[in-house]
Amino acid sequence: MKDIRPFYWKDSVLFLIDQKLLPQTIVYVRAKNHRQAASAIKDMVVRGAPAIGITAAFGMALACNERKFKNTYELSKYVLKAGETLKKSRPTAVNLFWAIGRMKKKIFEFISTSNKKFKSEKEKISFIQKSAEKEALNIWSEDIEMNKKISKFGAKLFKKNTNVITHCNAGALATGGIGTAVGVITEAYRQKKVKMVYADETRPYLQGARLTAWEFKQQNIPVTLITDNMAGYMMKTENVKAVVVGADRITKNGDTANKIGTYSLSILAKYHKVPFYVAAPSSTIDASKKTGKEIPIEERSWEEVTSIGNKCIAPKNIKVRHPAFDVTPSNLISAIITEKGIFRYPYNFK
Amino acid sequence: MKDIRPFYWKDSVLFLIDQKLLPQTIVYVRAKNHRQAASAIKDMVVRGAPAIGITAAFGMALACNERKFKNTYELSKYVLKAGETLKKSRPTAVNLFWAIGRMKKKIFEFISTSNKKFKSEKEKISFIQKSAEKEALNIWSEDIEMNKKISKFGAKLFKKNTNVITHCNAGALATGGIGTAVGVITEAYRQKKVKMVYADETRPYLQGARLTAWEFKQQNIPVTLITDNMAGYMMKTENVKAVVVGADRITKNGDTANKIGTYSLSILAKYHKVPFYVAAPSSTIDASKKTGKEIPIEERSWEEVTSIGNKCIAPKNIKVRHPAFDVTPSNLISAIITEKGIFRYPYNFK
Repeated sequence: MKDIRPFYWKDSVLFLIDQKLLPQTIVYVRAKNHRQAASAIKDMVVRGAPAIGITAAFGMALACNERKFKNTYELSKYVLKAGETLKKSRPTAVNLFWAIGRMKKKIFEFISTSNKKFKSEKEKISFIQKSAEKEALNIWSEDIEMNKKISKFGAKLFKKNTNVITHCNAGALATGGIGTAVGVITEAYRQKKVKMVYADETRPYLQGARLTAWEFKQQNIPVTLITDNMAGYMMKTENVKAVVVGADRITKNGDTANKIGTYSLSILAKYHKVPFYVAAPSSTIDASKKTGKEIPIEERSWEEVTSIGNKCIAPKNIKVRHPAFDVTPSNLISAIITEKGIFRYPYNFK
Repeated sequence: MKDIRPFYWKDSVLFLIDQKLLPQTIVYVRAKNHRQAASAIKDMVVRGAPAIGITAAFGMALACNERKFKNTYELSKYVLKAGETLKKSRPTAVNLFWAIGRMKKKIFEFISTSNKKFKSEKEKISFIQKSAEKEALNIWSEDIEMNKKISKFGAKLFKKNTNVITHCNAGALATGGIGTAVGVITEAYRQKKVKMVYADETRPYLQGARLTAWEFKQQNIPVTLITDNMAGYMMKTENVKAVVVGADRITKNGDTANKIGTYSLSILAKYHKVPFYVAAPSSTIDASKKTGKEIPIEERSWEEVTSIGNKCIAPKNIKVRHPAFDVTPSNLISAIITEKGIFRYPYNFK
């Protein structure tokens, strides 16, 4: 896994592994400008809330560098526009907005620095470009550190010989580091607390089958692939003792938007008295939203449901729903694990 | 739909539509002997508990006719062996065993008829062959009638403007007639009680996407295809007021084996206070089994989970589970609808 990252940054170009083609094919695509970064997010070349955030941060760094700006005014105008373009790439994951906001803040902090500190406008722009790149790299390295902390906190919640279910992919491919939900399970496994991981395949995009099962297999952690509709049966018959998932957005009260199917899984966990954990960096918490009702749910294309690869699996012209996410109410979440610690219901993240 | 049947019988040959290829390709395969009928069941050319039962009945009729028997003793030995072969085709659907048992009973009734009634052994064998064929045709036509009765009873449970979820395919393709769960919904739609049907795609075999969605579309009944993991979200956000599914086996206490995912769906229904109905002919009730714990659950091949068409969707050599069915405990079932009427918990089918 050490060599498999969702992205890397080299010579001011962002390289993104095309996650749509994993695990069969490993291809990195280049993002040389913020538009290409936005497209990579929109088209799900890169996915996973933290990874989307970091990609957007590099997108902002690219925006500072992709043109020859005459002056900082031109640069600032361009950066603001780039931020809007990147924001539109996906509506649900808050880390996207958080990362863009943080990059903007840093860029404008330097734009508003007195010109006296620089020999010329050109030097100032060059300084801003380097600073933006550094800030994006900071966001990335902070995410790596946060993953580690989340994993350590989360592993504390595991008892020995735990069978655990996870949904979608909140692993190395979804983050900058070892992952959130996958990181927790990986750390718990290192502490000899995990017997078997059940990975929901996670229709329609199959992140569980393609990415999570693959990540665990690469690490030689025992993993069993199941279809989403087997989760209840596994809880009933396979002594499942924990569910751990990631998050795309968490509201002030703890309501959590995550990949479609998470909500159903939380109800199944409740019924079987299995603890249901959410693992995410604190940047996933959107303090501007009181409850999950305020979270916009992205509706993606029907073709993603009716086709797998080039294979059509449904009748032609059939009506389809494709909410990419759902919201799990906080009362169904046993604990939310961030880099700051373990939070319990009723949630108060301050 | 009038022309689309899972099977038809012509000139002593059973024609089965290859349901694995639907809805893109409509091909009928021939079963000229009981082994071919058993293979068709095993390989899921034909599926759905009632359709499997009828196919097995025709398989028994074929067994009576596929060799030149010297005497009834030879015939009886052959028929018993054929019954065993057919029984092994799938372990969970009880209609299979029920239909084989009924055919055997009828065949042996005639075998034990006094020889005096026939001019020759040859004439007796010919009579048995015709009677077996007639009995299989009876089982089929009775199923058509039962479907109609189940549908009428079930439709009574619907109120106006109902959004309903169904899982897998318990439609015309799973039965001899208009279907059980699909029949109920179809009849309720005719009575103007159905607003929208949500069809779970039903991984791994996608019977919902390929068959149920297609059946409803053919009949111009409003249908929306969803992935299995969207069911909870739809219950929460789309005012779903009923779930109707079929059954592969029902025990004395009402526990119901049905396609994997049914159990999870029943828990989601319970949580959302949505009535959960099972529709099935009374031949699905296995009076020899007290509870669902006694039902054998068929574990099918891993490839059915890791591949769709020729497309591999998972890492190579990944461990997989593939229980084809699960058991929904009777306390999660609001009503069981058979051709005899509507039964309520606690179940007593006498």
